[in-house]
Amino acid sequence: MSKHGYESGRLNLPFVGHCTFGKQPVCLDWDAIDADIAVLGAPFDMGTQYRAGARFGPRSIREASTLFSFGHDGAYDFEDDVTYLPVDKVRMVDIGDADIIHTDTIRSHDNIEYGVRKILKAGALPVVLGGDHSVHIPCIRAFDDQDPVHIVHIDAHLDFVDERHGVRYGHGNPLRRASELNHVTGFTQLGIRNVSSSNRQDYDAARKAGSTILSVRHCRELGRDGVLAKVPDGARYYLTIDIDGFDPSIAPGTGTPSHGGFLYYEVLEILQGLTGKGRIVGIDLVEVAPDYDHSGSTAFLAAQLLMNVLGFIFHAQGKSS
Amino acid sequence: MSKHGYESGRLNLPFVGHCTFGKQPVCLDWDAIDADIAVLGAPFDMGTQYRAGARFGPRSIREASTLFSFGHDGAYDFEDDVTYLPVDKVRMVDIGDADIIHTDTIRSHDNIEYGVRKILKAGALPVVLGGDHSVHIPCIRAFDDQDPVHIVHIDAHLDFVDERHGVRYGHGNPLRRASELNHVTGFTQLGIRNVSSSNRQDYDAARKAGSTILSVRHCRELGRDGVLAKVPDGARYYLTIDIDGFDPSIAPGTGTPSHGGFLYYEVLEILQGLTGKGRIVGIDLVEVAPDYDHSGSTAFLAAQLLMNVLGFIFHAQGKSS
Amino acid sequence: MSKHGYESGRLNLPFVGHCTFGKQPVCLDWDAIDADIAVLGAPFDMGTQYRAGARFGPRSIREASTLFSFGHDGAYDFEDDVTYLPVDKVRMVDIGDADIIHTDTIRSHDNIEYGVRKILKAGALPVVLGGDHSVHIPCIRAFDDQDPVHIVHIDAHLDFVDERHGVRYGHGNPLRRASELNHVTGFTQLGIRNVSSSNRQDYDAARKAGSTILSVRHCRELGRDGVLAKVPDGARYYLTIDIDGFDPSIAPGTGTPSHGGFLYYEVLEILQGLTGKGRIVGIDLVEVAPDYDHSGSTAFLAAQLLMNVLGFIFHAQGKSS
Amino acid sequence: MSKHGYESGRLNLPFVGHCTFGKQPVCLDWDAIDADIAVLGAPFDMGTQYRAGARFGPRSIREASTLFSFGHDGAYDFEDDVTYLPVDKVRMVDIGDADIIHTDTIRSHDNIEYGVRKILKAGALPVVLGGDHSVHIPCIRAFDDQDPVHIVHIDAHLDFVDERHGVRYGHGNPLRRASELNHVTGFTQLGIRNVSSSNRQDYDAARKAGSTILSVRHCRELGRDGVLAKVPDGARYYLTIDIDGFDPSIAPGTGTPSHGGFLYYEVLEILQGLTGKGRIVGIDLVEVAPDYDHSGSTAFLAAQLLMNVLGFIFHAQGKSS
Amino acid sequence: MSKHGYESGRLNLPFVGHCTFGKQPVCLDWDAIDADIAVLGAPFDMGTQYRAGARFGPRSIREASTLFSFGHDGAYDFEDDVTYLPVDKVRMVDIGDADIIHTDTIRSHDNIEYGVRKILKAGALPVVLGGDHSVHIPCIRAFDDQDPVHIVHIDAHLDFVDERHGVRYGHGNPLRRASELNHVTGFTQLGIRNVSSSNRQDYDAARKAGSTILSVRHCRELGRDGVLAKVPDGARYYLTIDIDGFDPSIAPGTGTPSHGGFLYYEVLEILQGLTGKGRIVGIDLVEVAPDYDHSGSTAFLAAQLLMNVLGFIFHAQGKSS
Amino acid sequence: MSKHGYESGRLNLPFVGHCTFGKQPVCLDWDAIDADIAVLGAPFDMGTQYRAGARFGPRSIREASTLFSFGHDGAYDFEDDVTYLPVDKVRMVDIGDADIIHTDTIRSHDNIEYGVRKILKAGALPVVLGGDHSVHIPCIRAFDDQDPVHIVHIDAHLDFVDERHGVRYGHGNPLRRASELNHVTGFTQLGIRNVSSSNRQDYDAARKAGSTILSVRHCRELGRDGVLAKVPDGARYYLTIDIDGFDPSIAPGTGTPSHGGFLYYEVLEILQGLTGKGRIVGIDLVEVAPDYDHSGSTAFLAAQLLMNVLGFIFHAQGKSS
Repeated sequence: MSKHGYESGRLNLPFVGHCTFGKQPVCLDWDAIDADIAVLGAPFDMGTQYRAGARFGPRSIREASTLFSFGHDGAYDFEDDVTYLPVDKVRMVDIGDADIIHTDTIRSHDNIEYGVRKILKAGALPVVLGGDHSVHIPCIRAFDDQDPVHIVHIDAHLDFVDERHGVRYGHGNPLRRASELNHVTGFTQLGIRNVSSSNRQDYDAARKAGSTILSVRHCRELGRDGVLAKVPDGARYYLTIDIDGFDPSIAPGTGTPSHGGFLYYEVLEILQGLTGKGRIVGIDLVEVAPDYDHSGSTAFLAAQLLMNVLGFIFHAQGKSS
Repeated sequence: MSKHGYESGRLNLPFVGHCTFGKQPVCLDWDAIDADIAVLGAPFDMGTQYRAGARFGPRSIREASTLFSFGHDGAYDFEDDVTYLPVDKVRMVDIGDADIIHTDTIRSHDNIEYGVRKILKAGALPVVLGGDHSVHIPCIRAFDDQDPVHIVHIDAHLDFVDERHGVRYGHGNPLRRASELNHVTGFTQLGIRNVSSSNRQDYDAARKAGSTILSVRHCRELGRDGVLAKVPDGARYYLTIDIDGFDPSIAPGTGTPSHGGFLYYEVLEILQGLTGKGRIVGIDLVEVAPDYDHSGSTAFLAAQLLMNVLGFIFHAQGKSS
Repeated sequence: MSKHGYESGRLNLPFVGHCTFGKQPVCLDWDAIDADIAVLGAPFDMGTQYRAGARFGPRSIREASTLFSFGHDGAYDFEDDVTYLPVDKVRMVDIGDADIIHTDTIRSHDNIEYGVRKILKAGALPVVLGGDHSVHIPCIRAFDDQDPVHIVHIDAHLDFVDERHGVRYGHGNPLRRASELNHVTGFTQLGIRNVSSSNRQDYDAARKAGSTILSVRHCRELGRDGVLAKVPDGARYYLTIDIDGFDPSIAPGTGTPSHGGFLYYEVLEILQGLTGKGRIVGIDLVEVAPDYDHSGSTAFLAAQLLMNVLGFIFHAQGKSS
Repeated sequence: MSKHGYESGRLNLPFVGHCTFGKQPVCLDWDAIDADIAVLGAPFDMGTQYRAGARFGPRSIREASTLFSFGHDGAYDFEDDVTYLPVDKVRMVDIGDADIIHTDTIRSHDNIEYGVRKILKAGALPVVLGGDHSVHIPCIRAFDDQDPVHIVHIDAHLDFVDERHGVRYGHGNPLRRASELNHVTGFTQLGIRNVSSSNRQDYDAARKAGSTILSVRHCRELGRDGVLAKVPDGARYYLTIDIDGFDPSIAPGTGTPSHGGFLYYEVLEILQGLTGKGRIVGIDLVEVAPDYDHSGSTAFLAAQLLMNVLGFIFHAQGKSS
Repeated sequence: MSKHGYESGRLNLPFVGHCTFGKQPVCLDWDAIDADIAVLGAPFDMGTQYRAGARFGPRSIREASTLFSFGHDGAYDFEDDVTYLPVDKVRMVDIGDADIIHTDTIRSHDNIEYGVRKILKAGALPVVLGGDHSVHIPCIRAFDDQDPVHIVHIDAHLDFVDERHGVRYGHGNPLRRASELNHVTGFTQLGIRNVSSSNRQDYDAARKAGSTILSVRHCRELGRDGVLAKVPDGARYYLTIDIDGFDPSIAPGTGTPSHGGFLYYEVLEILQGLTGKGRIVGIDLVEVAPDYDHSGSTAFLAAQLLMNVLGFIFHAQGKSS
Repeated sequence: MSKHGYESGRLNLPFVGHCTFGKQPVCLDWDAIDADIAVLGAPFDMGTQYRAGARFGPRSIREASTLFSFGHDGAYDFEDDVTYLPVDKVRMVDIGDADIIHTDTIRSHDNIEYGVRKILKAGALPVVLGGDHSVHIPCIRAFDDQDPVHIVHIDAHLDFVDERHGVRYGHGNPLRRASELNHVTGFTQLGIRNVSSSNRQDYDAARKAGSTILSVRHCRELGRDGVLAKVPDGARYYLTIDIDGFDPSIAPGTGTPSHGGFLYYEVLEILQGLTGKGRIVGIDLVEVAPDYDHSGSTAFLAAQLLMNVLGFIFHAQGKSS
């Protein structure tokens, strides 16, 4: 088609129409996913230790993402002079949500894992919208028949608790669970900070499991390139982003905020750099809780970040214009 | 299928999945609508004279309607001992939104009219989610090749202004515009109240145009049956509901609230009675403005009311169980 | 001018322009008040015992009142077939706020009293927008050189505390203070309810001071006429309305809500009846706290009620059309 | 002490001090409960099927209850001319919250049951603040070594689901679970309404289990005495109140609101009547979700209702003045 | 004058009195403007493509500006050791709002243009409070009989769209429309960022029209002086500030937020520098949408920024102390 | 007990249990304080000049602090590799609130002073949670029988007003009042900024009283060490923190926000440095107003900052692990 969507068809303003991620097509038949990117919601928040509400994270991110939907031209960035995600080169679908079973953590997690496996089987990049951080557990588990991955983790908290009072699948445990998997080769954990982020035993365990742990201040001292230098080159990266890795000033809508967090470009530039070092093969973005996000800033942050990172990933594969 | 959805397939809790009206299927090809009911969003709010925001009405009503989605069994009401809207007898689709052109009232209205015509052509019942009350103008215009209709109007305001400062298509004008159409045979206007609802000239014009105008207090004095007795029997009814016809206690999320409004069962029972007198052939529900609806009550009201009225309409046609 | 404002001049939609009460003219020279009604703000809330914020009551009521502003024709009510407050018969001014001295209750109250005295001296009807209920104390004090008044009091609470821990001018004391004034002949206290409304000693003191005390349920049993029959005929009435006399469903934006309160028409009809029994010579409306009024319902209630009552007052004097 | 708290000691305004229920003393040693009433929080909301957040219900009700705290005199109600809950006759303690284990419904419920058993063992009346309605399951289970009880249930929903997708302990199941217990003799379920409240199978099961099921409209037709006549006389009543039994106008802060609910006095008067028919031996009040309760109305409703009902219960035992 | 306002007259705390900009005098007779600065509201938001609500921008900025009102002494800044805007040297008036005609973009814009022309005719500096960014179109048009201006534009978005679906006067078009005017000599566009800010064609068109376009990161690299060096010296500057040029952390209350924006001092210092290079002859500040500004931060930012910039402008003209 | 709380006893998630500061024990008998740290609430806000609501500051900070409560191990910080506030070395109690007398500033302040004196008498570190900044006056007065102190003041405003309209004890006066006390040896005032922060006379008076006054930009230019170099060495420091010293992006919930404020680590690092220079002997943290803090960010900031600073103070005394 020679003309873009603004000249023919609908104007399709952001506030018009159903909310799918980036207003991309829906694919509810999980055996028929035919796309480069598949977005899955994981509206589970029974793993939270303080404020819940992340079950509405997928809906709020989808709503916010309509502001960053774009026409047939893709997404132009004048700073880079690149049009990212051109429709003719990158196909994205929104496959809806994993089925959640209230009161039942195990089966809810299983359903999330099932969805990610379906995406991987279709050869698409899985992008999972949480939900609390415990949904990382089934996401990373679903990669067990894939080539190994190195986990890049943005968060205020280490999330490396083993077990407390029998709890092994809450939102304080996901990276510990990941560390037990053979296909996970190591961790880069960025943004960890403050007295509530960890305890000495968990910190030691994470270090022992091969993690590089950097606080926000560490990252600022090292700079973007210094941080990137600590990530193993040429790996397959799985990216897990807890929105509370960001500062409460831009991500107030989350259950357990921690002051002193990352600002937007700090994370964006590290992730842009990462796409130049290796390939991001899976993403989950968690802990957006819209009940605490009265202006919508947090959901916009999640949507804006994802849209940009997805552009970088496929630009690195030559899929841009 | 012999088993209902709870026993096989997904649990599909209300907070899970994309937001369509009642979680019903999407039909974006408006030439392929094949259903008994078709829901269209009309996210237009440039006609408002005070607080805007009704452009997000369709999204908020769709979100709220997920609470009233139901499985394959339909919607059981123990008071009536009826299961309304059984899936095998009533098919509903959500056809998305009319395209809105910012700054341009005329073309936005034309796009709404286009959508309603498509629904009517498919033989489905059009249910339009506003948007401000000016969207009634294109909705009712689209019926010009149908049999005549009598308009039943729930509102705090008479909305019968002819023209002020050149404005003819704002949210104070819709019923006046409707009165100029040949296929509109008369009006029953319910809930009109308070000093800001009208002026003497408009009131007289409405009376002259064949309107029965009843305040909330009039309706309470008459009772449900007394009100129904004033509506012509056996007509085809077009139902236009401004959510501010309801009391601000249950409908705070609207642009121009007016105290002293209807409560839930008052309207529900009149509308249930109406389905016994004739056939409701079109519906618009307008002025839900989620920015003022912090608890979601208003959107729940809109969704709950529509779901029940739709059940009554098809029950009157023998489509229930 | 023969044409009304809609045809010439400005359209002047409610959301346009500075916020004065009903968009009426400002008069900041308190020695030059020339009007039938003068509206004064009393943004004082240091008398509150629970949630403060009533200091922003005057601003929120003025904002809400713009929805009920009207053109040169006045305010038409089709139920009564009366146009209230026609501009050529009733002149209203907004004289701004009394000066408030933070930390200093006595001087703040004195400044309120000063403003009311200025209004009375000008021969206008004082309408005071609180502020907490303690502002009634200076309001009623300012009538000490006027003919005696009977106080009609709408409230959830009796407000008849004498002194606790030295406090005599808080929002629990105003009616007790009024009872000590020679120009106050008695009280009708309506809406008092619930276990937090009073204690036995204060209740007995109020009865001894000549008060008729009716709960919401009492008023419902008596009906409008039964309630009015308990108010002395032909008196000069001073009307003090605590917005928490209304139900939290329509007046959530207040410091000390109490469930089971009045609905809109219950109060409106009693006050309409009151204007037929005698003359309302002063009004204060207090305890609107916009920080708890997220949809604006409470401020709309205050503005809508005042606009209607003012219409009734001057209609009873033949000033309507 | 001959003087009440207002004259000596602290003024202790509602906004001052730690939040315990009614500002009553804390008792964290559950083997040392020495009181007539013991209040326990059950901040569990993993059983919810739509909006969560009821985990903060206990905190919000405690905060709201400070408005209804009272001095040494107790709580005077001038309509009844009774001082309820005089400190020298009724002793209340707040024993804190049951320990909640995130991701683990069974163990969380067990901890709630443990707390209720401790209260019962101490001979106090258990008052449990939810949490979602699934917390009723452990509450009623804890009565298994007590004399039989008849359950009085206020709710919009029947909550009589047996099992779906393996879920047996969610907030749709509690009354079904109760029906399986030998010490539960029957049910009176009040306020059930609307198409989302139940399905035909569950309704039939409830009827078979000995339940009297009345909608809000049924209750209004019957009147207070008619409703009470349907409750067995002289029984021991266990009272379970889902705040969504009330209308969204006064209880917006809940997960699954349903329009057309009870108003304040409708429930209060039924419960006051109940205390004259038999003895209320346990109470849970559930589903207050403060994230949707921006003005605090819902929490005030919960606190005000509980405070009054507790007064009625002990008044019926001669403990008032 | 020997005594300042704090010692005589009223204390006039920020929360007291009508809301005009900076509590400055009102001048509703637009033929009698006699001041150095005239503030005009342009409450138009029909040009928005996502969230509306900027129609309430003028009211919210006026309210917030009362916090920055000051006495007769003017506004002292200890960092600069300057008292800005001394009352005896700089006279400011608030002339209210342009009349807005709902549904009619053209006539609403005409009314805004009319107001700005009146201000210019009176020789005052026009300061226009939006409204959405489309109000820049009539503002800049009103300068067509003035000496040429260079536009300094703070924004996240380029706003250089020509026409889409016939729309030429929406909030994506203003700078393009300005580029068509003879009296506009060029542009400096600062803060433009992210994939939703523009597309390649519009970016090229802006460059061709003589625009210097700098992202936030560009500005940070250049530093304040580097940025200023790119602005033509000695010009007459027209300043158009879209509040979304700022970061969502400090300006959440806007329709289309974009993360990664300017912080307060970044913009303030560029604008302070600008007043040393030439003369700012007109200002519009747009897109403040209070419905998304729950803490008021955005309105405070707008008011604080304007108050400071106005001080700098007149300080550069020797009007300070 | 050899095992920490996670392995035995309760899990005690942050959302569980009564809200005391850091979930530390309550001590309501002020003659029996036996601890290293005693936290006192001062819920007084009658000293505010714009938005009130700080009376709920203590409750909101206590609630937020539950997120930063920790088990028997204390608070581990991996950046410092220190466990702060180990339970066996630092004992903290929450002694509730000072009694507040509405309408009466003097007596309310006296009650706050009384509480601080009790803490000092017990040898504990007083940590006072405001309330508005006027509560600093009684706090610092209570130190009159202690060794002299140097006041370190974090704020946007100088708060050095002497008297206006008779007001001497409002929230603009506290540092001036402190300057009149013999036991106050000087001031370091950090964060002061913007035109509303002071006037020339007050600024000169503060300088004359021995104050070092630095704006946020001054502090950034000097750096942490440069700022610390300006504070007298080896002194006893009294720390008074107005939350509006921080930027509105992280502290929106306050009455008089001022853009351009401190970010989290800027203040944290100065205060950490301070504990290495001398001893902090008293703290008040004021002006948290939860009604404007919809996401809770401000209260989390207050709690997080206090928890960290308390850790630093006792770490400097060797009480860490």
